[in-house]
Amino acid sequence: MRQAGRYLPEYREIRGRARSFLDFCYTPELAIEATLQPIRRFGFDAAILFSDILVVPDAFGQKVWFAEGEGPRLEPVTTREAFAALKPRIDLEHLQPVFEAIGGVRAALPAQTALFGFCGAPWTVASYMIAGRGTKDLAPARLIAYRDPELFAQLIERLVEGSIDYLSRQFEAGVDAVQIFESFASAIPERHVAAWSDEPIRRIVAGVRARVPGARIIVFSRGAGHRLSWLAAATGADAIGIDWTVDPVRAVREVPATVPTQGNLDPMALVAGGEMLEREVEVILSAFAGRPHIFNLGHGILPETPIAHVERLVAKVRGQV
Amino acid sequence: MRQAGRYLPEYREIRGRARSFLDFCYTPELAIEATLQPIRRFGFDAAILFSDILVVPDAFGQKVWFAEGEGPRLEPVTTREAFAALKPRIDLEHLQPVFEAIGGVRAALPAQTALFGFCGAPWTVASYMIAGRGTKDLAPARLIAYRDPELFAQLIERLVEGSIDYLSRQFEAGVDAVQIFESFASAIPERHVAAWSDEPIRRIVAGVRARVPGARIIVFSRGAGHRLSWLAAATGADAIGIDWTVDPVRAVREVPATVPTQGNLDPMALVAGGEMLEREVEVILSAFAGRPHIFNLGHGILPETPIAHVERLVAKVRGQV
Repeated sequence: MRQAGRYLPEYREIRGRARSFLDFCYTPELAIEATLQPIRRFGFDAAILFSDILVVPDAFGQKVWFAEGEGPRLEPVTTREAFAALKPRIDLEHLQPVFEAIGGVRAALPAQTALFGFCGAPWTVASYMIAGRGTKDLAPARLIAYRDPELFAQLIERLVEGSIDYLSRQFEAGVDAVQIFESFASAIPERHVAAWSDEPIRRIVAGVRARVPGARIIVFSRGAGHRLSWLAAATGADAIGIDWTVDPVRAVREVPATVPTQGNLDPMALVAGGEMLEREVEVILSAFAGRPHIFNLGHGILPETPIAHVERLVAKVRGQV
Repeated sequence: MRQAGRYLPEYREIRGRARSFLDFCYTPELAIEATLQPIRRFGFDAAILFSDILVVPDAFGQKVWFAEGEGPRLEPVTTREAFAALKPRIDLEHLQPVFEAIGGVRAALPAQTALFGFCGAPWTVASYMIAGRGTKDLAPARLIAYRDPELFAQLIERLVEGSIDYLSRQFEAGVDAVQIFESFASAIPERHVAAWSDEPIRRIVAGVRARVPGARIIVFSRGAGHRLSWLAAATGADAIGIDWTVDPVRAVREVPATVPTQGNLDPMALVAGGEMLEREVEVILSAFAGRPHIFNLGHGILPETPIAHVERLVAKVRGQV
């Protein structure tokens, strides 16, 4: 999950140095600085590249912008004409600043600190491309998938290829691992989850591994609570990110013991703090004890998160309090 | 699920006869007419009372209104003071028009057509009461649940008692069955789902049955896909509503064969129509064949649904095409 962001005063201070959020992501010195900020402040074991999943549609030539306080906006792709107007391949030249940022972060990071890159999974990215914004239940994307399955399949295919190109270049630029974020798996009818989500992800994983032998890939699928037992096998992932809705005790029972896990504190528990936070953290630590596990939130950190709560969390996970 | 609504021209025609959406629900002649409209047009086997889950907070004295085109708004209850200002018991007098509408519908319905009442489950209703509106991931409700678990528990308790009173009176007024809607179970951390959702629902079911022996109660829990096997036992429900995300084939495997089911067509497939709709309906019909099953959507009907698609669906389910 993104570690930097509005909850950090040092991030809020530099945010205004770029005209737009995308410009910020595409300005290596700013992306580098934002990536390093949480490492300096909290000393996390791994840094997460400061970027956004929507640089991919942007690099396919779709118009993408961020409306202040409202989230992302895109010129929706809902017709075959709009799809035909996209670039046939992802424009890696356009993403050059991202790769530069990766190189810069890697050079600045302590050797023992890992660097994680990422991209959105095809269904999640496609849902933004189709709806032109974040939506409740991803209704516009489901409508296209039902009404014009061929167009939908072509869009997913385009994103699979683009994501392979994009993630492979992230590895070449210096990341140690990548995460593929399926933020909206819960809005896929289960009967279509293999075709719309798991299989496209599996092809990305295989495609990246073919170009970058040994590439380490984490798959996070929000809403995959009922298929934890086979998610790693279905996607080929090295590790599984677990969302905050899942009971850690059940996760441990269902995810094969050889598959490393990541997660899964409710970001809202971190906002709340207090006794409930202590208890939630203890449940996670005790459930995953003795397994390869990356302690993390079960979704992105919220802007209203008090820094003191993050400090407390880090100390607790490190066994310092 | 609500059967009437904006997709019906005859509903749009009468909607303006009340000043507000709540006034509409509280005007027996309008609520009766809206309830009967889909029965007249499609001849469904059961009618669903035209009302809203937010009449319950309204009957506890919370300020509730519907902003045109934006959905419900409530004066949020986030403090102990605001909670203390609610009525200690639900005001059934205030809900008298709902019971009148039930009587009127029952009198007008053909004898073989069942009438279903409903209420929202405590977590779902509480999430609106706390946030003051529909929200992404029910963040405000989770925050209160973590930060002030005692206040949260009291609110849930208040809603359990109010729902028992409300549903019991619905039966006395003439409904044949009721549904309890947990629209937002997917936004409850699984570890808390028993305390925040299943157990409060179980207490409502038991409370209503104590007053109305043999009361038939359907529980719909959106996002309960991973606990279908024990949802009926956990809540005491007679039947389980299955949301559109669940694979019907898996549902049949996991829900005990003695428990009737309801569902679960994706409302967006009904909007889309065409080949995909035919296939989705066939999958459901064939999966639930030979079991006690109520064919229904897996969530509310969408305003943009073409009437021709509903007609086609009904004919298909009845084996007429």
